[in-house]
Amino acid sequence: MSSGNYYNVTTWPVGNPAEDIGEVFNSIIADVKRRQAVTNENMGGKPGAVIYLPPGDYRLRTQVLIDVSFLRIEGSGHGFTSSSIRFNVSEDELSGLHELWPGGSRILVDIPLNEDDDESTGAAFYVERSGSPRLSSIEFSNFCIDGLHFTPDGSELDPENTYVNGKTGIYIANANDSFRINGMGFVYLEHALTIYDADALSIHDNFIAECGNCIELRGWGQASKITDNLIGAGFKGHSIYAENHGGLLVTANNVFPRGASSVHFSGVTRSSITNNRLHSFYPGMVVLAANSSENLVASNHFLRDREPWTPFIGVDNGLDDLYGVLCISGSNNSIIGNHFSEVVDVHHIRPAGAKPVIIRLIQGSSNFVSTNHVVGVAIQAKSGGSAFEAQVDALLTTETLEALPVTTVKVDSESVRNTILDSGSDTDVVVDTAVNAFRATPTAGSSLL
Amino acid sequence: MSSGNYYNVTTWPVGNPAEDIGEVFNSIIADVKRRQAVTNENMGGKPGAVIYLPPGDYRLRTQVLIDVSFLRIEGSGHGFTSSSIRFNVSEDELSGLHELWPGGSRILVDIPLNEDDDESTGAAFYVERSGSPRLSSIEFSNFCIDGLHFTPDGSELDPENTYVNGKTGIYIANANDSFRINGMGFVYLEHALTIYDADALSIHDNFIAECGNCIELRGWGQASKITDNLIGAGFKGHSIYAENHGGLLVTANNVFPRGASSVHFSGVTRSSITNNRLHSFYPGMVVLAANSSENLVASNHFLRDREPWTPFIGVDNGLDDLYGVLCISGSNNSIIGNHFSEVVDVHHIRPAGAKPVIIRLIQGSSNFVSTNHVVGVAIQAKSGGSAFEAQVDALLTTETLEALPVTTVKVDSESVRNTILDSGSDTDVVVDTAVNAFRATPTAGSSLL
Amino acid sequence: MSSGNYYNVTTWPVGNPAEDIGEVFNSIIADVKRRQAVTNENMGGKPGAVIYLPPGDYRLRTQVLIDVSFLRIEGSGHGFTSSSIRFNVSEDELSGLHELWPGGSRILVDIPLNEDDDESTGAAFYVERSGSPRLSSIEFSNFCIDGLHFTPDGSELDPENTYVNGKTGIYIANANDSFRINGMGFVYLEHALTIYDADALSIHDNFIAECGNCIELRGWGQASKITDNLIGAGFKGHSIYAENHGGLLVTANNVFPRGASSVHFSGVTRSSITNNRLHSFYPGMVVLAANSSENLVASNHFLRDREPWTPFIGVDNGLDDLYGVLCISGSNNSIIGNHFSEVVDVHHIRPAGAKPVIIRLIQGSSNFVSTNHVVGVAIQAKSGGSAFEAQVDALLTTETLEALPVTTVKVDSESVRNTILDSGSDTDVVVDTAVNAFRATPTAGSSLL
Repeated sequence: MSSGNYYNVTTWPVGNPAEDIGEVFNSIIADVKRRQAVTNENMGGKPGAVIYLPPGDYRLRTQVLIDVSFLRIEGSGHGFTSSSIRFNVSEDELSGLHELWPGGSRILVDIPLNEDDDESTGAAFYVERSGSPRLSSIEFSNFCIDGLHFTPDGSELDPENTYVNGKTGIYIANANDSFRINGMGFVYLEHALTIYDADALSIHDNFIAECGNCIELRGWGQASKITDNLIGAGFKGHSIYAENHGGLLVTANNVFPRGASSVHFSGVTRSSITNNRLHSFYPGMVVLAANSSENLVASNHFLRDREPWTPFIGVDNGLDDLYGVLCISGSNNSIIGNHFSEVVDVHHIRPAGAKPVIIRLIQGSSNFVSTNHVVGVAIQAKSGGSAFEAQVDALLTTETLEALPVTTVKVDSESVRNTILDSGSDTDVVVDTAVNAFRATPTAGSSLL
Repeated sequence: MSSGNYYNVTTWPVGNPAEDIGEVFNSIIADVKRRQAVTNENMGGKPGAVIYLPPGDYRLRTQVLIDVSFLRIEGSGHGFTSSSIRFNVSEDELSGLHELWPGGSRILVDIPLNEDDDESTGAAFYVERSGSPRLSSIEFSNFCIDGLHFTPDGSELDPENTYVNGKTGIYIANANDSFRINGMGFVYLEHALTIYDADALSIHDNFIAECGNCIELRGWGQASKITDNLIGAGFKGHSIYAENHGGLLVTANNVFPRGASSVHFSGVTRSSITNNRLHSFYPGMVVLAANSSENLVASNHFLRDREPWTPFIGVDNGLDDLYGVLCISGSNNSIIGNHFSEVVDVHHIRPAGAKPVIIRLIQGSSNFVSTNHVVGVAIQAKSGGSAFEAQVDALLTTETLEALPVTTVKVDSESVRNTILDSGSDTDVVVDTAVNAFRATPTAGSSLL
Repeated sequence: MSSGNYYNVTTWPVGNPAEDIGEVFNSIIADVKRRQAVTNENMGGKPGAVIYLPPGDYRLRTQVLIDVSFLRIEGSGHGFTSSSIRFNVSEDELSGLHELWPGGSRILVDIPLNEDDDESTGAAFYVERSGSPRLSSIEFSNFCIDGLHFTPDGSELDPENTYVNGKTGIYIANANDSFRINGMGFVYLEHALTIYDADALSIHDNFIAECGNCIELRGWGQASKITDNLIGAGFKGHSIYAENHGGLLVTANNVFPRGASSVHFSGVTRSSITNNRLHSFYPGMVVLAANSSENLVASNHFLRDREPWTPFIGVDNGLDDLYGVLCISGSNNSIIGNHFSEVVDVHHIRPAGAKPVIIRLIQGSSNFVSTNHVVGVAIQAKSGGSAFEAQVDALLTTETLEALPVTTVKVDSESVRNTILDSGSDTDVVVDTAVNAFRATPTAGSSLL
């Protein structure tokens, strides 16, 4: 009977969900499959099931293996709170804290790991099935996956600030269709979402922050969307990464620092990065690499400024200011109608004295760059001990600013036949007009009429 | 008591939800109305109810009639899987399939139909009420409506590939307000959503694919939104259709093939098609017809290529390559900042030897077309037996491509006083500059400075 | 045990949810905290709880005080219906109405108020906690907050049309992180959402209409999003208001009349208003005030026409047609690729005979205004007794229209070094080209090539 397809982890008779929710999930999934096997004998459907986690702390010591379609795992709270702030609070403040941990329907990832374990071993949820059809319509909704702690990385950083721990939230190992990740919270994982070979995937309205990497679409894929998320990776990883995808729509996301990149595409074609708010502390904010072609980057707000929070001062992604904020190796891309704010202290520009590059065409041909507005602002860098106060202060300061000279567009010699329109004045754009088309943004007194 | 407004189809005493969920719904709705009638005597509210479907297969033999506001029907799984792929699998692969049908909280539409039945007869959910006020705030959430099979259409196509069967998922027959369709799955229906006279409707985050038509907004309407959906109709129908709507927002959708059009507006005004990823196998991808005026089409990614999947090779929507990928009959529209990729085999262009038209202004006046980037690519068409592998291959192939000459904008003589800026070079645009304003995209060596 | 964190208001032993849901909520929250205190002794987590409201009418006489993180309040229906239409129905129609009130999981705000009460006293939900950390991950989902009636404002308006009653839906008094407002309905409140000091807030997919003010982000804040909502305030208030925010993303909203403004920013920086559909009856539709800088306003559809509904004819926000539809006091903003329709009766223009101003740069410097399309249409104003029929009629009428001369961009003398490109012809734009850069939109016969 259909009502048998509704499970609640707190009432399932096998295992103890507080001690090892993984054992409980695996036992439930085995039950779903056992019951489907009976149904299948008369060629009926296999509708899957929903597994519900009420708010609560659920330690996960055993990896969950999902190999059945139409499974929905649903909680009642994405439960994000900033572990990063909490771990950087001074000793005397610690005892006064109202709470120490994320909450909601919260899974505490506590799988025992060895140093040479495969990346997938540290995943709370491992999704894999061979044969046909691909797994379809698996849904994760409104619960929290918490990696608990980061671990030493050999540097002098506080271990809780390294963004590494070998843990992954959800690892989808092979081809899949129509999956849905909605309303989830991810925190303190080295990888939040690692997904191979996605078709018609939807990652929508999640909170994915303080993870080494947030969203990684690996292998290949098509026709997916990453929409309306709040996202922010650590300095070693990507907030959004995709390789060999076509028809991917990345829109309406608010991507905050401190990812090494906000969006990194490798060999991605015919896809969109439109209408996002992107904020980063380093160059290389958005990278179209490895012949990423025919993509649209439009109506985005790019803000690149500097890390203002004391524990991470001096940390960066290793790129200098000539690298470009938006870097393109590929052809036939459209870069239209974006706003760029570059807000830096001239004393921190690398190499010293350089003019930072905003849009850089590295390799390829026939890209179209039009109607982009670049604002360069020189500031006196400040920092602060409170993560969000320091950030808000930095964000809101615009009044007493000086203009910062920048190269709005730089076209390298290996990128040719590009068209650069209205994206910087004659002195702002570096381009060989013998092999590229160029129309400078008019300046006062130079009216074209 | 309020808890009486929560219903579960599997525990309701009337009917058998596995055999005829329609009878169960109608019995529950009658109960809601019976209880409201009592409440209404003392002029209290009529808060409606929620009806829950756990994951399961629910056959629907009796149409559900909804004539009460504030009803929410909620499942735990949109349950899409590709029936199209399954029905085109070879006989010997069939027995090895893990599952054969969509799943989740799944309604199997199995209403007996005669050939001369009215279109609405085949609807699983029929929503209608006369008098005032209009029905308000009916919500459909997170379940699957499956039409099961397509039927012969008189052609030589396999019946399962015809996209016709007389079935509709949800049919809303008259004026309505603040309805919400969220997280649903629709598959193998001739019409997924047919909605008349919508006000402040929200169709958000659904999976609507392998249906003859996906979203049809008929009659008239205003102030609605179609956002963040994965959508793909069949070759006879529309992925998104609207007529006589004002203030409609179509955004953040990923529309995949093979609809005859991705978006078709008829007499639609002051509406937006912005920031979508659109992919089609035919011309006529986006059509603004019947004096559709003052609309904004901006920041969209248009990809028009060719059907790569064997079962549908040779099928199309009947339009030739001079028709235009984006076609406008109307006035004062804004076409700004879109990317177009036209990727075709020159041997398949119709009429033979023609230069395909991308943006076509057919009739009207004073349209503004600016800053659109068109990429024409000539390929050697390939096809394959696996639907998604063939598509992904086609999508990702950009390296070994030749440029395809196209007409980026063609302004017919019956469309006048238009402004065409930076949307193609002198040789790419066909326009009478005596009655239209035109500024060509500069080419290398022709710098305006 | 975790299942203890799931509460249902209809089964909680304290209080009567139909008579005072506030007492029930406060009793449940006290229980959550009592149980957390025990857990905390062993330094465990405090996962919060979910409180469920089935569909039903719940009167709220006692304010709910929320001071615990990870609380989710969830209903099964946003329950909007137009109270505004109902209160303006003629006496003889009234008895024939199917229903009189909003529905769904509906809270009837009925807190006794005195005239000198603080604004927060009239809030149904009051969220406040001092100390660290900030409250995190409180979620409101899928229920209705109904203010029931408006009250006399000293004018001659019907009291039900004044948009004042001292009531607020949710009032968040101090710094907060990762809150989520999803799928809610708000109606007939003077303030729907008043939120101070928000960080990473998400207001997504709500229905907020017929409220004096809809969304107010006060104090300061960062990295938040207001996405995919249906919103419409009253003539005295704002549909969306934000002050001192950085990195705010306002996108994919359909904002209908009749707010005094659709979006009002005060001191907001590095934020986005992109890809919205905006409709207003007055000038001052979008205002960037108080040095709002480095913002992106792109790909929006602006429609400014006139109130067509009889009960509100003659009511407005007090601004004349020289004020501007989009008004900017600030620097380095980007205004790119927007569509504007100004549809007015020349007899109603104020001051009489004036050319209405569409984009106005009042104060600041270095704004970039490019590729905006402005359509001016002169109509014969009509009105009607039915709210939605009058609006739809007005929206769909484009055929028999005359062009209305407008000033597409006006740059005041206190705003300098701006760049105005392709946003109006020589005669449409008022700008001092000695201190601003200007390129007129070409007109027919004036081709730049």
